[in-house]
Amino acid sequence: MLDIMDASEQRPRIAFFGLGKMGEPMARNLLRAGFETSVWNRSRPAAERLREAGAQLLGDPAEAADADVVIAMLPDLPQIEELLAPLIVRWGGAPVARPRTLVVMSTVSPAAVVRFGARLEGLAELIDAPVSGGTEGAEQGTLAIMAGGSEAAFQRVKQVFDAMGRAQRLGGLGAGSLAKACNQVLVGLTAAALAEAVVVAERSGLDGQQLLEVLSGGLADSAVLRQIGPRIAARDFRVRGAAQFMLKDLGFFLDAAEQSGTDAALSRAARDRYAALVEQGLGGQDLAVVRTVVEGRE
Amino acid sequence: MLDIMDASEQRPRIAFFGLGKMGEPMARNLLRAGFETSVWNRSRPAAERLREAGAQLLGDPAEAADADVVIAMLPDLPQIEELLAPLIVRWGGAPVARPRTLVVMSTVSPAAVVRFGARLEGLAELIDAPVSGGTEGAEQGTLAIMAGGSEAAFQRVKQVFDAMGRAQRLGGLGAGSLAKACNQVLVGLTAAALAEAVVVAERSGLDGQQLLEVLSGGLADSAVLRQIGPRIAARDFRVRGAAQFMLKDLGFFLDAAEQSGTDAALSRAARDRYAALVEQGLGGQDLAVVRTVVEGRE
Repeated sequence: MLDIMDASEQRPRIAFFGLGKMGEPMARNLLRAGFETSVWNRSRPAAERLREAGAQLLGDPAEAADADVVIAMLPDLPQIEELLAPLIVRWGGAPVARPRTLVVMSTVSPAAVVRFGARLEGLAELIDAPVSGGTEGAEQGTLAIMAGGSEAAFQRVKQVFDAMGRAQRLGGLGAGSLAKACNQVLVGLTAAALAEAVVVAERSGLDGQQLLEVLSGGLADSAVLRQIGPRIAARDFRVRGAAQFMLKDLGFFLDAAEQSGTDAALSRAARDRYAALVEQGLGGQDLAVVRTVVEGRE
Repeated sequence: MLDIMDASEQRPRIAFFGLGKMGEPMARNLLRAGFETSVWNRSRPAAERLREAGAQLLGDPAEAADADVVIAMLPDLPQIEELLAPLIVRWGGAPVARPRTLVVMSTVSPAAVVRFGARLEGLAELIDAPVSGGTEGAEQGTLAIMAGGSEAAFQRVKQVFDAMGRAQRLGGLGAGSLAKACNQVLVGLTAAALAEAVVVAERSGLDGQQLLEVLSGGLADSAVLRQIGPRIAARDFRVRGAAQFMLKDLGFFLDAAEQSGTDAALSRAARDRYAALVEQGLGGQDLAVVRTVVEGRE
């Protein structure tokens, strides 16, 4: 009890891995909030920018061994496990003086993150905490953070989350990743449904943008309609969120559906759409490119 | 030119058919706006209420022959064509003194309404103008009205639409019905996607309502999530909008998709969901009952 109180009262030392479009502003907000933060990044420029903002640079992942909270914001779990392997070895050789918490904020497989947590037992406690809100939410510190893990671990890192957005704990380890997968099901299905509606409407003589404007006035309104819809109608496929990630995320959801014995027929149909898109070499373009698959030509 | 100006300057006389949950408040708003309005309804009580509000009662549909604007708000087009047959016969026997406009505000097949318009040629001009916004929008006169037809006919009835909501003309006859079908694709797909997300999340140990709350904070947010989502999570299937209408409406969209040579795979998958639901005898319950099909039991 005393240990936990001590840990929550003093400011945890943070090590942050992955300074991409999301990670860099997230780490910057930790520095702004006054956390002692060390950072690691594959390429140098982002790390240098953070150093100027007050961060220490880590030369080797194992140097994060003294951090209380290690945050990973890398593309997927396999990269995280590989990169942090030296750190985990170092943890294994040193007794746990204070609670160590590893926070995976990437969008990862709920099942895989549970397995990773089991491998870390006795070395560090794992929390999965993927985010929604895009680069804007990352910069403004208003991310929706969907967390899974023990209540004690969540409370230890709560003040760290507060510097980046609004965190909610949805259950044990994996619950955050499953919630994020559900988020992606809704985003991916809505974008694909909008593509079907716009293509059929335009081929029938209607104006796609005018259709979206009318639809936004009623029950069909959604954040996807307002943010991605206009790009679908305008055939603007410059990347804000690459379509290939949707394929990965829908796969995570379908694995969870299968494990729970649920026939998620619509999510499967959406997955097929995005798989076709990636096969056609369009995965690096914006999610709006799903329009192209509906049109049946490149 | 003079004829059109005359027609738009004087207040059209209206005949309104179908005083259901939507039609009654719509007709009431026409009376409030000062239009001379006669009404017809299958059952008596709603017609009596409108008479007290100032409407004339029609004993027979053919008595609407002198109206400038005939509005039909009946369940589907076949009922409209059958009910209005005596009126159309009467129109055929009388010369057109002033422009006659028939406005179909029900959700109907885009292709069928075009065929109906052709049959009326020389007798009356047809406009399709389905609505979105529910009974609340009907009562408050804030319906989104999606219209199709000639610009001249639209301008003749514009002041009538203004008493019921906000009208936009999306193109020629059938365009309004196609826009409404697109609306239903988004509503139906989003509701079914929410059902898949909530069922998988709950079976994996998450709380459905908490999941919806988290999702509403990001790109997965939508009017369907906020209005129908909580009913899906709470298994509250008391009818606000009966699920069987969704099956009909998705069929209209899929017909248009086929006619335009578009493979609308997701809309087809959604249609299969609602078809299964109707087959199980659940069509009279609320749209939220799509959860039951995802669960694979009644």
